[in-house]
Amino acid sequence: MTSASPTQTTPLAIVVLAAGKGTRMKSDLHKVLHPIAGRPMLEHLLASAAELAPERQVVIAGHGREQLATALGTRATIAVQDPQLGTGHAVQQAEEALSGFDGDVLILYGDVPFVRPQTMRAMIERLHAPDGPAVVVLGFEPQDPLQYGRILAHDDGRIAMMVEYKDATDEQRACRLCNSGLMAVKSADLFGLLAKVGNENTQGEYYLVDIVNIATLEDRACAVIVTDDEDEVAGINSRGELAEAEGRWQHKRRAQAMADGVTLVAPETVFFAWDTRLGRDVTVEPNVVFGPGVTVADKVVIHAFSHLEGATLESGVEVGPYARLRPGAVLKANAKVGNFVEVKKAVLGEGAKANHLTYLGDAVIGAGANIGAGTITCNYDGYFKHQTVIGDRAFIGSNSALVAPLRIGADAIVAAGSAVTRDVADGELRLVRGEQLVKPGWADRFHDAMKKKKAEKPR
Amino acid sequence: MTSASPTQTTPLAIVVLAAGKGTRMKSDLHKVLHPIAGRPMLEHLLASAAELAPERQVVIAGHGREQLATALGTRATIAVQDPQLGTGHAVQQAEEALSGFDGDVLILYGDVPFVRPQTMRAMIERLHAPDGPAVVVLGFEPQDPLQYGRILAHDDGRIAMMVEYKDATDEQRACRLCNSGLMAVKSADLFGLLAKVGNENTQGEYYLVDIVNIATLEDRACAVIVTDDEDEVAGINSRGELAEAEGRWQHKRRAQAMADGVTLVAPETVFFAWDTRLGRDVTVEPNVVFGPGVTVADKVVIHAFSHLEGATLESGVEVGPYARLRPGAVLKANAKVGNFVEVKKAVLGEGAKANHLTYLGDAVIGAGANIGAGTITCNYDGYFKHQTVIGDRAFIGSNSALVAPLRIGADAIVAAGSAVTRDVADGELRLVRGEQLVKPGWADRFHDAMKKKKAEKPR
Amino acid sequence: MTSASPTQTTPLAIVVLAAGKGTRMKSDLHKVLHPIAGRPMLEHLLASAAELAPERQVVIAGHGREQLATALGTRATIAVQDPQLGTGHAVQQAEEALSGFDGDVLILYGDVPFVRPQTMRAMIERLHAPDGPAVVVLGFEPQDPLQYGRILAHDDGRIAMMVEYKDATDEQRACRLCNSGLMAVKSADLFGLLAKVGNENTQGEYYLVDIVNIATLEDRACAVIVTDDEDEVAGINSRGELAEAEGRWQHKRRAQAMADGVTLVAPETVFFAWDTRLGRDVTVEPNVVFGPGVTVADKVVIHAFSHLEGATLESGVEVGPYARLRPGAVLKANAKVGNFVEVKKAVLGEGAKANHLTYLGDAVIGAGANIGAGTITCNYDGYFKHQTVIGDRAFIGSNSALVAPLRIGADAIVAAGSAVTRDVADGELRLVRGEQLVKPGWADRFHDAMKKKKAEKPR
Repeated sequence: MTSASPTQTTPLAIVVLAAGKGTRMKSDLHKVLHPIAGRPMLEHLLASAAELAPERQVVIAGHGREQLATALGTRATIAVQDPQLGTGHAVQQAEEALSGFDGDVLILYGDVPFVRPQTMRAMIERLHAPDGPAVVVLGFEPQDPLQYGRILAHDDGRIAMMVEYKDATDEQRACRLCNSGLMAVKSADLFGLLAKVGNENTQGEYYLVDIVNIATLEDRACAVIVTDDEDEVAGINSRGELAEAEGRWQHKRRAQAMADGVTLVAPETVFFAWDTRLGRDVTVEPNVVFGPGVTVADKVVIHAFSHLEGATLESGVEVGPYARLRPGAVLKANAKVGNFVEVKKAVLGEGAKANHLTYLGDAVIGAGANIGAGTITCNYDGYFKHQTVIGDRAFIGSNSALVAPLRIGADAIVAAGSAVTRDVADGELRLVRGEQLVKPGWADRFHDAMKKKKAEKPR
Repeated sequence: MTSASPTQTTPLAIVVLAAGKGTRMKSDLHKVLHPIAGRPMLEHLLASAAELAPERQVVIAGHGREQLATALGTRATIAVQDPQLGTGHAVQQAEEALSGFDGDVLILYGDVPFVRPQTMRAMIERLHAPDGPAVVVLGFEPQDPLQYGRILAHDDGRIAMMVEYKDATDEQRACRLCNSGLMAVKSADLFGLLAKVGNENTQGEYYLVDIVNIATLEDRACAVIVTDDEDEVAGINSRGELAEAEGRWQHKRRAQAMADGVTLVAPETVFFAWDTRLGRDVTVEPNVVFGPGVTVADKVVIHAFSHLEGATLESGVEVGPYARLRPGAVLKANAKVGNFVEVKKAVLGEGAKANHLTYLGDAVIGAGANIGAGTITCNYDGYFKHQTVIGDRAFIGSNSALVAPLRIGADAIVAAGSAVTRDVADGELRLVRGEQLVKPGWADRFHDAMKKKKAEKPR
Repeated sequence: MTSASPTQTTPLAIVVLAAGKGTRMKSDLHKVLHPIAGRPMLEHLLASAAELAPERQVVIAGHGREQLATALGTRATIAVQDPQLGTGHAVQQAEEALSGFDGDVLILYGDVPFVRPQTMRAMIERLHAPDGPAVVVLGFEPQDPLQYGRILAHDDGRIAMMVEYKDATDEQRACRLCNSGLMAVKSADLFGLLAKVGNENTQGEYYLVDIVNIATLEDRACAVIVTDDEDEVAGINSRGELAEAEGRWQHKRRAQAMADGVTLVAPETVFFAWDTRLGRDVTVEPNVVFGPGVTVADKVVIHAFSHLEGATLESGVEVGPYARLRPGAVLKANAKVGNFVEVKKAVLGEGAKANHLTYLGDAVIGAGANIGAGTITCNYDGYFKHQTVIGDRAFIGSNSALVAPLRIGADAIVAAGSAVTRDVADGELRLVRGEQLVKPGWADRFHDAMKKKKAEKPR
């Protein structure tokens, strides 16, 4: 499929079918809201369609329509299909939402989320080809055509006939061109054709696909264009298919990362989100998970077992293993976050370090500061969050508790094991510690007593 | 293979061959005790056989018999094979343990652990079919028959001849029906047939399979039933095969979880134990390991890099990433356990939270309690374990050490950084902290001195 | 290929081509310095060549030659190719470095790092066979020959002709024997042949392969030997190919570990380094990463999500899950390191335990010592590292900070929550703790005030 022109002149509407029960998902969450790469599958589809700047977006909803309404807000019109009498009937429900609209209508499916924008464009361009088809169908040629409906087409893409698998002759079944269900139709034709669709079939349903044969019988040409990527028309009907779609998405994303100059030591163990951005000469070790919202600059090293979400890593940063960066984590150039360290809504200045067993929440940490092992910012009092501000080159001794709100000055030192509750000035030492009580021989006596008790204790 | 009837009338004995050296495992642990999905392979086999309620269970042991005795306790009779003169000789060792037994004998292999109960039942039912076979053999049709012994059988399943691969003609080798080694024989026939088995072969061994040809020569019918699942007769002889069996088991279990309504973002990175129980609309992120004894209710979210063992998670619970739940961890509805948190033998009340860098051992934590980052229950004095009880809605400030035995009341507050050794009453504040010592300018002087020293120090 | 003789009599020089730009890597790091299994690919190659004890090693460098010089030090002579006029031209640059050398020359490629020593030996032995070939080429028979140059050879391995894919007839292309580019040539022949290579081709380059046809035309025999392992001649030109090479390496290493008696529960999730050494009856759970320098003795258990680097684990040791062992970690027999514990440059004595949320750096810990949860060795003052020495059977209470330099005696006890700054004698108790301040009812009043404030606060 060649890349289509970037602009489109005829107005476009999309109709997304999303009324199915999704029974096989066995879920209270609407099927099309299940996420892939950290983003609901419906959002993947809408984002691709958005590249064609549709004037109107109609989502056909049935079960779980409230969830769809919440997810979509004002971005699309929801048309309710109730009862549900087939795909043709579903599209008919869009008539009101499309009243007054004159242009192209692209019919999509909420559970077929990875149709590419260039494929959508190619369908619409075909609709405007000189032979003026009434309907453009997206076909595909699967490795194993199974029981898909077949498209019998001429060499120029004009459709002779659509035939359901169960009605097909052996010869027709030998044809590998299958119907994806996606269609482009001019609004002027769509509802007229749909009105002629009947439900004389075993299911008693109105099938969208019938508009093709109806148009053909009326001597209107219909055409197929064929995608070369079977994956983009794959439907997701179960958690197994959801996992497969996720797997295919990750596989492509990993290949893209490597092609862009990222080392993935074990690509199959790295999981990206839909919006992960990675610089050049980044190294990602095995077992790293990216949630949404992560931006990684050049020459960053992400060690094994790290988990990043909503984080910004500037050039030269090194994190992990076992680093957990949460939303709002900003690591300035050459900062370092080590093992078992959690960073949330906190900025680490240039070259600052927090290497071990630390929690930094709601904090601003100066350049070159050193946060000792076991440091905890006590940012929450059970009701409100408070901020900790640490100056440049400050040194926070290990196992300290920093009780926010708190300011620690530049070059200041907090002694190990201190629970700091009052601000520390620049260049000041803060030491919070009890007295060293010594009880010579006490431990020896304790050991003797306990050993005796242990020996006596029944098991 | 059709599902067999749930009841069985003739008494059943199972004989499990487990005398082999298992040389290729290169292990001091008995081969059949190596675990798959957290459970010794022998236990998998015995659990499947238990569904047929055998009256007697005999395990034929040789090398490492003490390990088997310890593992089995009184559940099975151990018959020793020493020296080891072949599979027929092995089964002969069961004669004493089966004295007085009159019924069906199912011959199994400790290193072929995944034979399904319905397959075992089908073998026994075939033994009682009208044509009254003396021996029923379980056959399989592998993708690649390799050098397995072949079963030459009639269409009705009656066996014409068993032939070893090395003795087989090309025509016989073309037959893909292979001998799994598993057999069902009536006790009345078994030892008589075995007595006729000779050892005139290159190995000088008595082969169990010979009873089939011996019975056939005596005009007793023998029959084969064929499994449609090659995996259930796969033998495990090396760590490589052990890993493959684990992999097949996990693959099936993951598919089952997804079919039941569990989202596995990356199924290939989730490892279940044999007894993991999962509710509906549970989400399991990448890289999660389940040890034995875990029960997860509906709508639980398990974030990446979590490790669960012997834990109970009620509905709405959220754990991880990097949550480590150990035996006795009970998370009541909507409780939350965050990153780098270990929970052992501890109950978290409804909606309670322990979000960061915490160790909760031998504890009972009230509903709605908030356990601050870096909290440690000091439950061990080097000799005994002691309990910590925390009341509803209590707030434990970050980086606190709770020295057990200890009770903290409802709505109580422990200030950050406190080492608490005495009980805290309801609604009380406990503050354990040294004085804030301030040394203005000290840090600046320290920096100057150290920089000087560092400059002087030879590298 | 049969194993070659261990000794070699004729002097050997290797010439490693490493002048390419490596554009597809999109990296500032020289292509041949990208690591596989924790070791630069060039080092893998040099280590294999070292088994043949070459007298001279010449690396042909172009772009990024400074990085190569730094990496190689005095181990090899770097010859610069600038401009870069093809592989033949590249080898010509070695002439000066090989002046005075009389022996065999083996031509290798820095981005083909996994040629086995026995293959190198076989090439050289073939060079000294009675038919006295001028050039020995290493051939391979790929599954898919793609557009590799073909080797047309007689049954005895003598080459009739080398032909580039684009120049080959269909009949020649049907030949699956391909040219890997690796060659063995006597130094006496090499530069004479190279001098005759022309650059009359579309690229205007001097191709090394041309020396074969030149020698053949001069009635000098040339011969091919064929590797049975396609992987060893695989070139690495992109991050994708780098990941594939890493994957193949890991796959082989895992199989080797299992064959040696190591249980890998999920082999595909375990990542070894080039020098990882593992004993017998070691168990490695899913998701374990080995950096360089790890030695693991018999019967060690490494739980899931552990990360080991530069660590020595004696017999019976148990670590993880989530153990992070860094360089210099030495765990004596039966020591135990638990979850979220980091050990760096520290020795844990026999049977010592550090089970939870601990950082042990620059420490020596006695046999049987118990390090409580949340213990931190404060080993760094911002300028220097200091040591902590803990005696046998000492008990460090949870959440303690040990401020180094520090010595804690045998059988000593440190009370939970102590920041210890002065040495503790044998059998002594050290208690560092503030007073327990009690404010009855304070928490209740705080809750009331905060709830009121929260209710007032605008969202």
